[in-house]
Amino acid sequence: MEAAAAGSNAGSRSGSGPAPAALPPLDAESRELLEAWRDRVSCELDTVVDFWIRHSHDPEHGGFFSCLSRDGTVYDETKYVWMQGRQVWVYARLYRSVPRFRRPELLEAARAGGEFLLRCARPDPRVPKAAFALLRDGRAAKVQRSVFSECFCALALDELGRATGNACYEAAAREGLEAAERWAREEPNGPGRPPLLRLHLQRGRTAVLEHVSQDGLELPGSLGRLQNPGHAIEAGWMLLLHARARGDMAAADEAIDGFMLGPLDAGWDSPHGGLLAFHDADGLCPTQLEWAMKLWWPHAEALVALLAAFAHRRDPALLRRFEQVAEFTFQRFPDPEHGEWFGYLNRDSSLALSIKGGPFKGCFHVPRALYMCEELLNEILAGP
Amino acid sequence: MEAAAAGSNAGSRSGSGPAPAALPPLDAESRELLEAWRDRVSCELDTVVDFWIRHSHDPEHGGFFSCLSRDGTVYDETKYVWMQGRQVWVYARLYRSVPRFRRPELLEAARAGGEFLLRCARPDPRVPKAAFALLRDGRAAKVQRSVFSECFCALALDELGRATGNACYEAAAREGLEAAERWAREEPNGPGRPPLLRLHLQRGRTAVLEHVSQDGLELPGSLGRLQNPGHAIEAGWMLLLHARARGDMAAADEAIDGFMLGPLDAGWDSPHGGLLAFHDADGLCPTQLEWAMKLWWPHAEALVALLAAFAHRRDPALLRRFEQVAEFTFQRFPDPEHGEWFGYLNRDSSLALSIKGGPFKGCFHVPRALYMCEELLNEILAGP
Repeated sequence: MEAAAAGSNAGSRSGSGPAPAALPPLDAESRELLEAWRDRVSCELDTVVDFWIRHSHDPEHGGFFSCLSRDGTVYDETKYVWMQGRQVWVYARLYRSVPRFRRPELLEAARAGGEFLLRCARPDPRVPKAAFALLRDGRAAKVQRSVFSECFCALALDELGRATGNACYEAAAREGLEAAERWAREEPNGPGRPPLLRLHLQRGRTAVLEHVSQDGLELPGSLGRLQNPGHAIEAGWMLLLHARARGDMAAADEAIDGFMLGPLDAGWDSPHGGLLAFHDADGLCPTQLEWAMKLWWPHAEALVALLAAFAHRRDPALLRRFEQVAEFTFQRFPDPEHGEWFGYLNRDSSLALSIKGGPFKGCFHVPRALYMCEELLNEILAGP
Repeated sequence: MEAAAAGSNAGSRSGSGPAPAALPPLDAESRELLEAWRDRVSCELDTVVDFWIRHSHDPEHGGFFSCLSRDGTVYDETKYVWMQGRQVWVYARLYRSVPRFRRPELLEAARAGGEFLLRCARPDPRVPKAAFALLRDGRAAKVQRSVFSECFCALALDELGRATGNACYEAAAREGLEAAERWAREEPNGPGRPPLLRLHLQRGRTAVLEHVSQDGLELPGSLGRLQNPGHAIEAGWMLLLHARARGDMAAADEAIDGFMLGPLDAGWDSPHGGLLAFHDADGLCPTQLEWAMKLWWPHAEALVALLAAFAHRRDPALLRRFEQVAEFTFQRFPDPEHGEWFGYLNRDSSLALSIKGGPFKGCFHVPRALYMCEELLNEILAGP
């Protein structure tokens, strides 16, 4: 789901489909506010991309390091295939879509990352199964039973094909995605099945549950009651962009009300502020140790979601909500000293982990969110 | 390793093997201190066992609930096989070893738990593979590729056999343990291999590393540098009791200095106090989100370890260390209102999760530690 949306034209003005008939014009105050946020977001995007360019490239073996300490030092040389694919996608998309990033060295880095994936992602080149983690030199370190590595490789190569105009990348992307789809659809015990996103909207459409039964019923116990606001909100903007591209206004409303605003309300941690990593639909204590931590990516996703919702509906309440989340996020996550964002804060927003990247944080959620916010802000400011 | 040690006569005066020749006598102040701790520990053990008796039994289907909220309410009916086996062991061991727990209802509860395991632990009764988690009615919910479920079943049935005098339980324990050993020893790709504990003492015997290569070398990256003070200290007391039982004084010293005192020093979180869940041997930031949380079980293990070390060596520094850990632990983990211990504190000792039990916390570490501390304190106080 993430792969498909990140690979779509999400957030670009040309691909956003029909909007509702009568959008109210922006008042002067909102316009000023949005312009200020556009400048702040653009500047932050530059800083973040610069961090990854300076610290994550491996000129010796190709590919990217993602395990970077606060100052960018590599603390572990493992190369995670998800992170390789995601970083290629970010570089190629920025090169292709944002004039100030149309720099040869960015395309060259994307291409080098794509070639590293083509050379090393599959432990056995005859089988289209990608590894989860590679050693620095590209030999497989770990293989997982899921289709995410394959999806992120396909995402990377598809975008690289668009950025370079080289059809070989697109063909490789298609081949990998077809294999992943085959596993997902044809083999009930294969590495993965595509989730039917909207089955997760439960309890009279008031709660997005992280796990539901295959026929869309609530599961018993903690697992069934688990809510992950970040996942719901991220799914919300993907659903919204998809709905707008198809002109499906009912689905767009469901995306905003069911997948964004509901989870934002339920998952916002008063009085500390910020989105909880997990919570329980009945208000019980979750069993996830990190449930009350504030992670970078749900906040990044919420920024995109609220701007996409405001672009669609122009409800001033959505803009106020964006401001609330953006103020919280920009005050706490960016590192003013070394650049990029911290990933893991305690419930009270104190720093829990000082790393800038790791097995699950790389060059992806932050630059993708900032890029999409910049595009959405431009779209809104260019409107009525 | 844990199974074997928990199933031994660890901590009982009769089974502790030869002690070093000349133990210095206790001074009056130490004796008073130890007597006060014995009373506190005994009282806490009563409260803890009472909590599980009141809240965890399932009279309808048999077996024990472990997912208990702060006040003992069941928040999830899943029955984890590890937790079933551990609770049977605790009940049967207390019944057999501690006069005030020789109550028919405790033995009856242990027997009912053992029968539930015999009836339900194996999804296919013809194959000696136990499930990881069961539904409330005993049907399998999840099977894992490891030998821990089998080991905890064997532990439970062995102790139940001793407590009841019924040889059928012992035979079932033996059969399950033999199957687990077969998988571990004969099949290189079987569910588990026994770890060679002492290979984990690395870096000139100054650091216990959580993961090492099969030939005892440090692994690269974060994984290789990872330290888990709780595991090291728990392994330390098991190794110490084993060494004392064999009269191996060199191994006993290594257990105390390498596996207890080194990890206690390195893993103690100044100035907050308490043991870190994880840390990095080079002082870098770990990637585990909960690395700086204070979990109940490492503290419980440290109490046992330090008393076992003091019983062996009578070094007053060990007693001071015990006091430090015990003061921290008894101030923060026990719940004065509903009984039992909280499991998960933030770095600053504020409460992170209010649950009393869950998938990884049941009727085990706390009562085992309190029982062993009571036995060790009795042993020390009965000595010179």
